[in-house]
Amino acid sequence: MNEKYIPDEWKIIEEGFVPKENRLSESIFSLGNEHMGMRGFFEESYSGDSLQGTYIAGIYYPDKTRVGWWKNGYPEFFAKVLNATNWIGINISINGQSLDLAQCEVSDFKRELDMKQGLLTRTFVAKDAKGQESSVKFKRFLSMQSPHIACIHVSVTPLNYGGKIVFEPYLDGDISNEDSNYGEKFWVPIDKKSNEQYIVLTMETKKTAFWLSTATESKVYKDGIEIACERNVIEKEKYISTSLETAVNQGQEISLIKYVSVCTSRDYDKDELEAQATTLLKQALNTGYNQLFEQHCIVMQKKWDASDVVIEGDIKAQQGIRYNIFQLNQTYTGKDPRLNIGPKGFTGEKYGGCTYWDTEAFCFPFYLYTDQEVAKNLLYYRYLHLPQAKENAAKLGFKGALYPMVTMDGQECHNEWEITFEEIHRNGAIAYAIYNYTNYTGDSSYLETYGIEVLVELCRFWADRVTYQPRKDKYMILGVTGPNEYENNVNNNWYTNLMASWTLAYTLENLRELKIKACSHYLEVVDKLGLDEAETLIWKEINEKMYFPTVEELAIFEQNDLYMDKEQTLVSDLPSEALPLNKNWSWDRILRSCFIKQADVIQGIYFFPEQFDAGCKQRNFDFYEPRTVHESSLSPSIYAIVACQIGYQDKAHEMYLRTARLDLDNYNDDTDDGVHLTSMVGSWLVLIQGFAGVSVHENQLSFNPFVPKQWQGYSFKINFRGRDLKIKVDSGQLEISQTTGTPMQVVVHQETYQCSMDKFLVVPLNG
Amino acid sequence: MNEKYIPDEWKIIEEGFVPKENRLSESIFSLGNEHMGMRGFFEESYSGDSLQGTYIAGIYYPDKTRVGWWKNGYPEFFAKVLNATNWIGINISINGQSLDLAQCEVSDFKRELDMKQGLLTRTFVAKDAKGQESSVKFKRFLSMQSPHIACIHVSVTPLNYGGKIVFEPYLDGDISNEDSNYGEKFWVPIDKKSNEQYIVLTMETKKTAFWLSTATESKVYKDGIEIACERNVIEKEKYISTSLETAVNQGQEISLIKYVSVCTSRDYDKDELEAQATTLLKQALNTGYNQLFEQHCIVMQKKWDASDVVIEGDIKAQQGIRYNIFQLNQTYTGKDPRLNIGPKGFTGEKYGGCTYWDTEAFCFPFYLYTDQEVAKNLLYYRYLHLPQAKENAAKLGFKGALYPMVTMDGQECHNEWEITFEEIHRNGAIAYAIYNYTNYTGDSSYLETYGIEVLVELCRFWADRVTYQPRKDKYMILGVTGPNEYENNVNNNWYTNLMASWTLAYTLENLRELKIKACSHYLEVVDKLGLDEAETLIWKEINEKMYFPTVEELAIFEQNDLYMDKEQTLVSDLPSEALPLNKNWSWDRILRSCFIKQADVIQGIYFFPEQFDAGCKQRNFDFYEPRTVHESSLSPSIYAIVACQIGYQDKAHEMYLRTARLDLDNYNDDTDDGVHLTSMVGSWLVLIQGFAGVSVHENQLSFNPFVPKQWQGYSFKINFRGRDLKIKVDSGQLEISQTTGTPMQVVVHQETYQCSMDKFLVVPLNG
Repeated sequence: MNEKYIPDEWKIIEEGFVPKENRLSESIFSLGNEHMGMRGFFEESYSGDSLQGTYIAGIYYPDKTRVGWWKNGYPEFFAKVLNATNWIGINISINGQSLDLAQCEVSDFKRELDMKQGLLTRTFVAKDAKGQESSVKFKRFLSMQSPHIACIHVSVTPLNYGGKIVFEPYLDGDISNEDSNYGEKFWVPIDKKSNEQYIVLTMETKKTAFWLSTATESKVYKDGIEIACERNVIEKEKYISTSLETAVNQGQEISLIKYVSVCTSRDYDKDELEAQATTLLKQALNTGYNQLFEQHCIVMQKKWDASDVVIEGDIKAQQGIRYNIFQLNQTYTGKDPRLNIGPKGFTGEKYGGCTYWDTEAFCFPFYLYTDQEVAKNLLYYRYLHLPQAKENAAKLGFKGALYPMVTMDGQECHNEWEITFEEIHRNGAIAYAIYNYTNYTGDSSYLETYGIEVLVELCRFWADRVTYQPRKDKYMILGVTGPNEYENNVNNNWYTNLMASWTLAYTLENLRELKIKACSHYLEVVDKLGLDEAETLIWKEINEKMYFPTVEELAIFEQNDLYMDKEQTLVSDLPSEALPLNKNWSWDRILRSCFIKQADVIQGIYFFPEQFDAGCKQRNFDFYEPRTVHESSLSPSIYAIVACQIGYQDKAHEMYLRTARLDLDNYNDDTDDGVHLTSMVGSWLVLIQGFAGVSVHENQLSFNPFVPKQWQGYSFKINFRGRDLKIKVDSGQLEISQTTGTPMQVVVHQETYQCSMDKFLVVPLNG
Repeated sequence: MNEKYIPDEWKIIEEGFVPKENRLSESIFSLGNEHMGMRGFFEESYSGDSLQGTYIAGIYYPDKTRVGWWKNGYPEFFAKVLNATNWIGINISINGQSLDLAQCEVSDFKRELDMKQGLLTRTFVAKDAKGQESSVKFKRFLSMQSPHIACIHVSVTPLNYGGKIVFEPYLDGDISNEDSNYGEKFWVPIDKKSNEQYIVLTMETKKTAFWLSTATESKVYKDGIEIACERNVIEKEKYISTSLETAVNQGQEISLIKYVSVCTSRDYDKDELEAQATTLLKQALNTGYNQLFEQHCIVMQKKWDASDVVIEGDIKAQQGIRYNIFQLNQTYTGKDPRLNIGPKGFTGEKYGGCTYWDTEAFCFPFYLYTDQEVAKNLLYYRYLHLPQAKENAAKLGFKGALYPMVTMDGQECHNEWEITFEEIHRNGAIAYAIYNYTNYTGDSSYLETYGIEVLVELCRFWADRVTYQPRKDKYMILGVTGPNEYENNVNNNWYTNLMASWTLAYTLENLRELKIKACSHYLEVVDKLGLDEAETLIWKEINEKMYFPTVEELAIFEQNDLYMDKEQTLVSDLPSEALPLNKNWSWDRILRSCFIKQADVIQGIYFFPEQFDAGCKQRNFDFYEPRTVHESSLSPSIYAIVACQIGYQDKAHEMYLRTARLDLDNYNDDTDDGVHLTSMVGSWLVLIQGFAGVSVHENQLSFNPFVPKQWQGYSFKINFRGRDLKIKVDSGQLEISQTTGTPMQVVVHQETYQCSMDKFLVVPLNG
């Protein structure tokens, strides 16, 4: 843990420059706008340690899979997100001395991320080797209004000298990934151009042949007045810049605004790409920095209006949850259904920027509760990948669809057999998201138009993947890895069996309903998918005869067959130096231990809270939680939510703290590589689904709220079926103010209340 | 299957040159002499497809482990055997035209391996682009008498031209491995020298810094008379050669004999290495080709005297078993206890030339029955690696010793967690070899001096690796992979539990005996190892309470927990296109199937034939054999031996055929990469331990012979406790002729007979 950043409600503030923590801060100060994003690295040249990263959503590279021992079924390529043209770069030379914080005495250093505005500011005073002292300020934002546009504003004020300052804003395409095999570079140059109005650089990715055009132009100001200055274009093989030279006096502020446009062949034809980039750049130049920033702030405000959370009485908690919401909204806005949510967003190279089951299992409710169109696009993303999921199943010898564990374009790109081939529970989360959307929104249009196809193909997979065991007259699912990746290749993971069985039942139910409700559409679907009664009868039988391992004497579910043959010890019995296990124990020891990486049985209980009574939840929680090491950042939030359902409020708050400031406090000492984006959502989930107990049963929005005793209260915003709601909870009452939509009933602690735009609903709470 | 080679009792003959099968023949025509070896590639330059391979025993390179997903406990380096300086090379130029079979019309091509003499001959007529026809003959041998020495004899007879022939015998150190990461070269040049008497080249391996000096000199003959010819030395960075030019007339035979010495810093100081190589070369030159070859043949004859097998009535079976014995004797002669038996010997790069459990579990009896000193050195090899095996166990968090799955220098160099960390049954084979040696030879000196330490450390590992399961009051071994690698990470693999339990019992028994027999030595051992009674009491308890999974209703052992939950189908139910599974099924499908890669339960029965009655053997064989796909070449021979014990003679012979000519008939279509050395021993095992039923009980040599009905009879040689024995079996009788040693009793089909040098024992057989 590293409490490095100054607590503030709306800002992340770093004071003082600590070069060895630079990577951490680069991660924390990342910006994005769905289309593109970048780590918080410096604009000016910096010779110290840094993980430079500029990423464009959807631009990836299928790097050759490296594996010692090949298994049939492994993908040949592993998609990775590409570090792309550096377009923020501005070299600054002061009387011939390059500004480089690794070579200067630095004072008054401050980095500040204004989360409300989506603006990154950096100020410092640098004294170079010649003794020249400059006061420097950088600002940058990536437009949420015009996602191809970004602006950087830099100003330099000489404190003890005068002379010549040269700015060299550049576009550098000579970029590599830190994680590339043998330092291979993935970009080749296509074109560069320059004229008096702009410079533009076009690069192409190897193999995938994506084109990326970046165009830029800068304006220079002296004490706020635009000035003309000597301008030279510099070109290298994959690089282009303009050198802007101006004279400056002591105390005079010289500023530069760099406008950038970033366009790819994902959005435009290759032969129009360069023209498109320059057109967008010219529009931005015409609009000007201030107006661009205002437009950006309007969109930011809309995001906050839909998704803000206020926590009273705990400023660090407030900062933590806003940071998490900020990063979620920076990474994915749902405008482009071809995109999804990488575990590190735009904040690092790790996990290849790919899509995991994290999206459906963890991130989905955030978007679902705050903007249903965004949520629908996440569902549609998987529909678009159905052909690849079927291909993936076929490759392993199965019918139906097996969604990939990790993907960039729908194809599997992971290669640990125990995960790639066995962590098939991911299919369950895909189905669950369809249910979740339909249940929350009451909108069955996605389900009927697209979802039903996905569900049928998932059922086909499960029906082919089960093994009938005649000795027990049960269907089993052999050789799987559950959400707990600290057990591999087990039989009958309870959670996996639950998800499979539920998917079969849910699909059958929806087919029945579709048949009644829209018979001709039903017949089309049946015809398109070649579905017959024999097939659905088998699904019914599998659902009815699914095997669920249990520990009879404890009346709990058994995580998987033979789990109880393990030596049963508790995390509290472990010496502290053993933790985290994944750093201190050999892999085989972890596998043989009873210790659980992340919610597994509890994940199933979380998904289906109504299926299990309070006693059952409590017994399973009491058994599994003390055996869980929470070495996935996805784990504590799920336990916290179930703890809330049981009434373990203190435990829930304790668990909440483990994700609330995961990255801000560098909890796992690994935020250098990037933030844990898909885990960040966990604190939001706990607050909304746990503390406030929001759920939807039979089309009614329901609350079971309480306030952790460390807080005074909290409020949040959700949208429910066309109604914008602001919910405020303190220890005495729950308040609901509805700002849009028709009246409705809500349920609070099992009691029904009327809610409407006219009525500010206040429900007193006990204790 | 590819029946390419002409059947012959003592020779492997290839007629006709088929370039696309060149790699296969290069494997088949490999030569070795324990110190070094090489594939059967050509001496003259060849621009066609070829896997050139020259290997020096014990010279390896720790290449960086390549793995996508790192697990704690993986080794950082993977040792691989190095392709080394090519010292057989002789460029031949005929009137300026380079002799290259890929550029010539080739006729009368014949490659012939004389297994009796260990001589490789190649003859052909080549017509080059100028129409010049030459009759060419190559011979080469690697001296079994002087392992650093080799000779190549080449003669060229112009058939339709005269003119100038230039020979350029060379030493080429600019060599790489085909399997190196990104084509990296592992050798750097140290020195080269030339004078009128020889040329010498010294190379060094990267990282391991082994030095290799090769020295060579050639003599030229015209019609058998040595001649002087113009001699020029050619040098490149990692290359040195002499160019020898001579005039020749049509019909005149020009010959060249290339003498080579090959020395490494494994055997000599680096500063003496070059001198040593040249000294040995000069000695060889003085001795001359004919005498060197004679000396070599004498050693070859001794090897055959000790280990030959004769099969009557089946020339292909005869050729097959002799080829297998030949390759075993070429690869490992037991002179150097630092060496072991790589799965491909000197015939390819694959498996990195490392040591596997194959040595103890499969190869050991061949050496044990034919030359006990060699066998003892194999045991001693593991004793030398005990410190690394302890280190390996400690790395995974265990006491005692865990021998590596794959090793070159005692350190683990494999990295699939399910094998590296879980295929711990390998420890059992190490213990079993100690027992096997002691039981067969009656010599307990190794056991008492070295073996007991190994056994104690193995016990310590097992005692730490078991899990006590209070619900059943049993000790279990969780999370293992058995010999059947088509199941991973299972609990209670019956074979592993058997080997662990037996090792504990065997060690306790030997400690007891040592205490009685040699109390002061016992006390020394106990003191050295820090062994106390409490520790041995735990071993006793684990042995007594070991859990063995069984299938009650079938009265068989269960391969591992939950094996019977798998869908039970038979190999005979599989469509033929499914086989081999490892090429046609995805890995996860293989894992979930009941199909078994290689003997697993049956391996345990093979090791301890006296522990299981005939009914038990039969029930287990009848259950497991139909589920076994034998996709390890180690499998059929073990099943065959147990089949012999049950009386399944036809089945045994059928299984025998699957290893007997595995490489000669390219049975698995993969001999291109090298021969299956450790599997080759399988046919020998089946013949001796299966068909002849040789075993040792209570210090008596015992036979249970029969003759497969496809054969007339067979004979073989073994040495038993100082007695050389020739055993001959035909359908009517067993004959034993003893040529050395004292009289003894032998048991044939449970009857006892007297055997001595004076008495030619003939025992009539029924049927």
